[in-house]
Amino acid sequence: RDRAHILRYFALKWALCFLVGALTAAAAFVANLGVENVAGAKFVVTSNLMLARRFESAFTVFLVSNFVLTMFATVLTVYVSPAAAGSGIPEVKAYLNGVDAPNIFSLKTLVVKVVGCIAAVSASLHVGKAGPLVHTGACIASILGQGGSHKYHMTCKWLRYFKNDRDRRDLVTCGSGAGIAGAFRAPVAGVLFALETVSSRWRSALLWRAFFTTAMVAVVLRALIDICKTGRCGLFGKGGLIMFDVTSGYINYHVVDLPPVITLGVLGGVLGSLYNFFLDRVLRFYNLINEKGQTYKLLLAATVTICTSCCLFGLPWLATCKPCPTGGEEACPSIGRSGNFKKFQCAMNEYNDLASLFFNTNDDTIRNLYSAGTDHEFHLSSIILFFMASYFLGIFSYGLALPSGLFVPLILTGAAYGRLVGMLIGSQSTLDHGLFAVLGSAALLGGSMRMTVSVCVVILELTNNLLMLPLVMLVLIISKTVADAFNANVYDLLVNLKGFPFLEGHAEPYMRQLSVSDVVTGPLQTFNGLEKVGRIVDVLKTTGHNGFPVVDEPPFSDIPLLYGLVLRAHLLVLLRKKDFISSCTASALDASKHFSPDDFAKRGSGKHDRIEDIELTADEMEMFVDLHPFTNTSPYTVVETMSLAKALILFREVGLRHLLVLPKSSKRAPVVGILTRHDFMPEHVLGLHPYLIKSRWKKVRFGKSAFTNFF
Amino acid sequence: RDRAHILRYFALKWALCFLVGALTAAAAFVANLGVENVAGAKFVVTSNLMLARRFESAFTVFLVSNFVLTMFATVLTVYVSPAAAGSGIPEVKAYLNGVDAPNIFSLKTLVVKVVGCIAAVSASLHVGKAGPLVHTGACIASILGQGGSHKYHMTCKWLRYFKNDRDRRDLVTCGSGAGIAGAFRAPVAGVLFALETVSSRWRSALLWRAFFTTAMVAVVLRALIDICKTGRCGLFGKGGLIMFDVTSGYINYHVVDLPPVITLGVLGGVLGSLYNFFLDRVLRFYNLINEKGQTYKLLLAATVTICTSCCLFGLPWLATCKPCPTGGEEACPSIGRSGNFKKFQCAMNEYNDLASLFFNTNDDTIRNLYSAGTDHEFHLSSIILFFMASYFLGIFSYGLALPSGLFVPLILTGAAYGRLVGMLIGSQSTLDHGLFAVLGSAALLGGSMRMTVSVCVVILELTNNLLMLPLVMLVLIISKTVADAFNANVYDLLVNLKGFPFLEGHAEPYMRQLSVSDVVTGPLQTFNGLEKVGRIVDVLKTTGHNGFPVVDEPPFSDIPLLYGLVLRAHLLVLLRKKDFISSCTASALDASKHFSPDDFAKRGSGKHDRIEDIELTADEMEMFVDLHPFTNTSPYTVVETMSLAKALILFREVGLRHLLVLPKSSKRAPVVGILTRHDFMPEHVLGLHPYLIKSRWKKVRFGKSAFTNFF
Repeated sequence: RDRAHILRYFALKWALCFLVGALTAAAAFVANLGVENVAGAKFVVTSNLMLARRFESAFTVFLVSNFVLTMFATVLTVYVSPAAAGSGIPEVKAYLNGVDAPNIFSLKTLVVKVVGCIAAVSASLHVGKAGPLVHTGACIASILGQGGSHKYHMTCKWLRYFKNDRDRRDLVTCGSGAGIAGAFRAPVAGVLFALETVSSRWRSALLWRAFFTTAMVAVVLRALIDICKTGRCGLFGKGGLIMFDVTSGYINYHVVDLPPVITLGVLGGVLGSLYNFFLDRVLRFYNLINEKGQTYKLLLAATVTICTSCCLFGLPWLATCKPCPTGGEEACPSIGRSGNFKKFQCAMNEYNDLASLFFNTNDDTIRNLYSAGTDHEFHLSSIILFFMASYFLGIFSYGLALPSGLFVPLILTGAAYGRLVGMLIGSQSTLDHGLFAVLGSAALLGGSMRMTVSVCVVILELTNNLLMLPLVMLVLIISKTVADAFNANVYDLLVNLKGFPFLEGHAEPYMRQLSVSDVVTGPLQTFNGLEKVGRIVDVLKTTGHNGFPVVDEPPFSDIPLLYGLVLRAHLLVLLRKKDFISSCTASALDASKHFSPDDFAKRGSGKHDRIEDIELTADEMEMFVDLHPFTNTSPYTVVETMSLAKALILFREVGLRHLLVLPKSSKRAPVVGILTRHDFMPEHVLGLHPYLIKSRWKKVRFGKSAFTNFF
Repeated sequence: RDRAHILRYFALKWALCFLVGALTAAAAFVANLGVENVAGAKFVVTSNLMLARRFESAFTVFLVSNFVLTMFATVLTVYVSPAAAGSGIPEVKAYLNGVDAPNIFSLKTLVVKVVGCIAAVSASLHVGKAGPLVHTGACIASILGQGGSHKYHMTCKWLRYFKNDRDRRDLVTCGSGAGIAGAFRAPVAGVLFALETVSSRWRSALLWRAFFTTAMVAVVLRALIDICKTGRCGLFGKGGLIMFDVTSGYINYHVVDLPPVITLGVLGGVLGSLYNFFLDRVLRFYNLINEKGQTYKLLLAATVTICTSCCLFGLPWLATCKPCPTGGEEACPSIGRSGNFKKFQCAMNEYNDLASLFFNTNDDTIRNLYSAGTDHEFHLSSIILFFMASYFLGIFSYGLALPSGLFVPLILTGAAYGRLVGMLIGSQSTLDHGLFAVLGSAALLGGSMRMTVSVCVVILELTNNLLMLPLVMLVLIISKTVADAFNANVYDLLVNLKGFPFLEGHAEPYMRQLSVSDVVTGPLQTFNGLEKVGRIVDVLKTTGHNGFPVVDEPPFSDIPLLYGLVLRAHLLVLLRKKDFISSCTASALDASKHFSPDDFAKRGSGKHDRIEDIELTADEMEMFVDLHPFTNTSPYTVVETMSLAKALILFREVGLRHLLVLPKSSKRAPVVGILTRHDFMPEHVLGLHPYLIKSRWKKVRFGKSAFTNFF
């Protein structure tokens, strides 16, 4: 490729990164704008009714609007794009590992994700925007990378350059980082999230491009917010796009603060791993219901939203009204939607602290809990009640068939948990309860998601205070260590539940005892360099393999020689083009001249040819096709005596889809098998060699028993 | 391995990380303590003499103390540990890429690095502490990882678990991150630096361990500083361990601020790449001098330190005294060592702005330049003069034979550059000149080092202000992009200058046109499964290879079969143990029983057996040794027709040292060659195929011509 091509390719790469950043920022902005306005309008109407002491009407409005919004999101998800359900992070993670789940990056999914997310969050369900925004960013990246959604006629130039897996995956990685950057206005955390959690492979160049993407997110978001400062965005004002300035001057901490902070970390780890455990159980139960049909999905969502609405409206009545603090800077009670002091059912000079937590958008509640100097604003019983409700509402809301994130519920629950710990055992310490809330969020995020660096930076960027960095790090390290002793992180759990064949980065110890020949299964289908069309059609129809070794047999070579690997997708292109030759002799013509590289370019997601769609006459079936020009002559290979663990490292580190197995001795066929992702799955390996189960790798964990004995 | 072993291994891993963090923090603390006290004492004495208007004595004291300190550092480096010269980051980077330079991680190097660094920085040379601290962290990690420095008798348990390359490299990665964390009190930046700049391979588990290490650095550093708060650390007080609180409330920026900021980025990129260019030239020139002998190294250092002292003391006389601002909070002129207003030669109510920059420790100067609300404190001519002097002093100071870092000079020069830009074109903008200085540092760091994410986080953690994140990102992106158009980053340049065979992450395009058989050279030395001792000794003496294929020949197999790969180090162990058999028949005894795994464990750095040290009798030379139990039977292999580019990806991603090349056709010998790191070096490949030079990969750059035409 000449210089101009390379330059154009580079320019396109950066232009796409810029576009991904800008569009993801726009999506994040739209999501926030939507939530703030829809949820805001709902709370304004209900609050006004409450002020007028028409409590029944208020409840009705609250319940009905939540119900309608939830049903809207669910119907959209169930009937338009089921792939948009959940947070989407497991799907993105699996995609970057090499698993292409169907439809996860279609335009439909993108639209449903954004619109559904606005509806679901506005419906006061205990779900977040961050996960869906990660999926949204990845969707935008994938659609741009494949040159639009085939409905729009993009120019050839677009398509020519990004027709390969690697460029698309890189772009999706950047997109997922942009999602977190947009959700939390945390560009550095976005890069780290993409690196730590989502991506399976990483290069330095990618770090730099992801950084560029998230920087663009930050710049575009800022510009959009500046526009909104003029007041043209409805209720979207100070509230939108969480960034909690909790700077309370210089945070000082001493040795006496360590015991409560360490306790916070340990308990956070336990609570986080319990969260994962409960979530796993609830999701398995929900899956049973959801499998029964679309109506059941709707019923489930309806049940949960009604219960949630009842909780949010009902529980604040349990709290006793507190008299307003005198001399506070803030108006009390705060009439309107923002502010710490919700009036709810109380008299004019009183406020309901529980309503300030429950009867609010999640972002506002987090801000209330994080704010400094509010040690005496909340009653202990209110915080306990809110923590319990938040913990279980989060677990029960995630599995619904609508876009829903885990981040915000965990931050919220963690903030309540942190305040609780601060109230119970923080009396000796000089730390503010708002700071305890921040540390509590870190503890719960660390305990459930087990991300350390990115959570640390998310917390720092959210709260804009670097001085508490050592405390946040300490809490994260403790909670992750404690939680790792019990179970896996929440994303691994979700990937497992979805059944994706996720390839782990490390080899299990029992794989060291096996050689690759121990796991190669099934009859191997190979093609000759000059192969009969009928045989190709036959093999493609009867097997589902995506790659086939090509072997040159005599008379074309002295002995059978491995020529290379041909892909199913390329064979289908050949068959569709019908560029056959009539006799089984080496053709003088170079068949590759009849094809352009674009014919073999990677299609957009979901656009696969199928062998059933290709119609061939009986005459054509008797003809031959020269596979040589279309064969990859440099496939990666291993010798059959190679250790399975080492082969896995090769497969994973180089990012392969097929790995050819060569015979040890030259007396046998030139190729003895082909390894794919499924051959490395522990289920497959242990299925073939059940005696290895006892030596299966157990992380140094207490095992499930510790939990399962209780439940 | 059973559960107890695994647990112990894990515990040891984390304990070592903790130790690395704690010791690196201690080293960083000692370095700072030393610099602040030595340099502080020097400045106190000189300032007092200046106050007494005894200018000649002041200059003499300044010059002599600088000279003595520089000579002390140089003598120490030259005669005790030459490996301690320079920043050490290129060596660490090469080590993590797989290049073991001699003595870089010895205990001697560690001590010389820390002591020499204190002396060099105290001598007012234009060098920094960050680079040497990275090397120090890596040294500590390496020494701990190999179980102490062989002078201390560590227990067996230590040695048993970390006797492999991977664990040691992981630990060194954590150590280098700890170095940056200690130098700047920036734990997150430390992790990112290790990831972005130093490391060649990266796993998620490592991220987590590096994070733990840097968190420990932060905690230990804080504890040590708390101890110093009581005043027991001499002059080490507010000054030590740079952390510049430049929080000037809420930083607001508008569209009008963009043009100067973008200009700052573009010019910063140009200046940064010019810096690299000049540094390269100066280092090549210095190398010519340094090669002549140790005396020349001393002379060079003496020349540079005398020139530097003259500059620092002489240039402030050019500035005119400015009257002290009225109503300022700070005392003016500031008598003592800290403070913005140096009196120098001025009258009682005046200050010398140039002396505040030159006649100060680097950390204090940076703090002066970064401080907000000082727009009118410095004269334009002073800033121009300081910038020019700082730029070239930095370039001329790096190549001396003493520990010296690049970070702080770049930050300092960048700060002056940023203020300059702010003064010249910032009149329209509302940004503070202190903020311009911060952005200038980012621009120059981005332009020279080309690190984005880690520099960004370093700047944020140094200045403790997250609100300028978008601006910093913008400047970094622009300056890196501009600088990348001219030349490579400064570390690649240094690695090149040192001649390390550094393996790049990407394959050059011309490698796609070659197959591995095109680069396999030289006669291949293989061993039989049962090999004569004499032949082994002969081969080991005549070749320098580190790995040899083992081939089973008839009568032990039907046809010659590749058995595996045996390492030179293991052969030496076998020869030393003299566990030979007398006849060339398959031995019934399993020779491996006579050895314990520890015999083959990786030695400490610099502790290699040599074949010349092994004495064998003529009888023994006629005996045989069974290589089978000591052979790696699962070496990675490629077929000879494999694309060189693909083989390089395998080599690099899996992290290999040897790659066996198998024949395509089974009629030939079972192995046709062995590829090592050197076979992939562009010099080697292009030496074999000179016609490829014209198609050599050029990054989309203007090429050197743009610069070289000027100079």
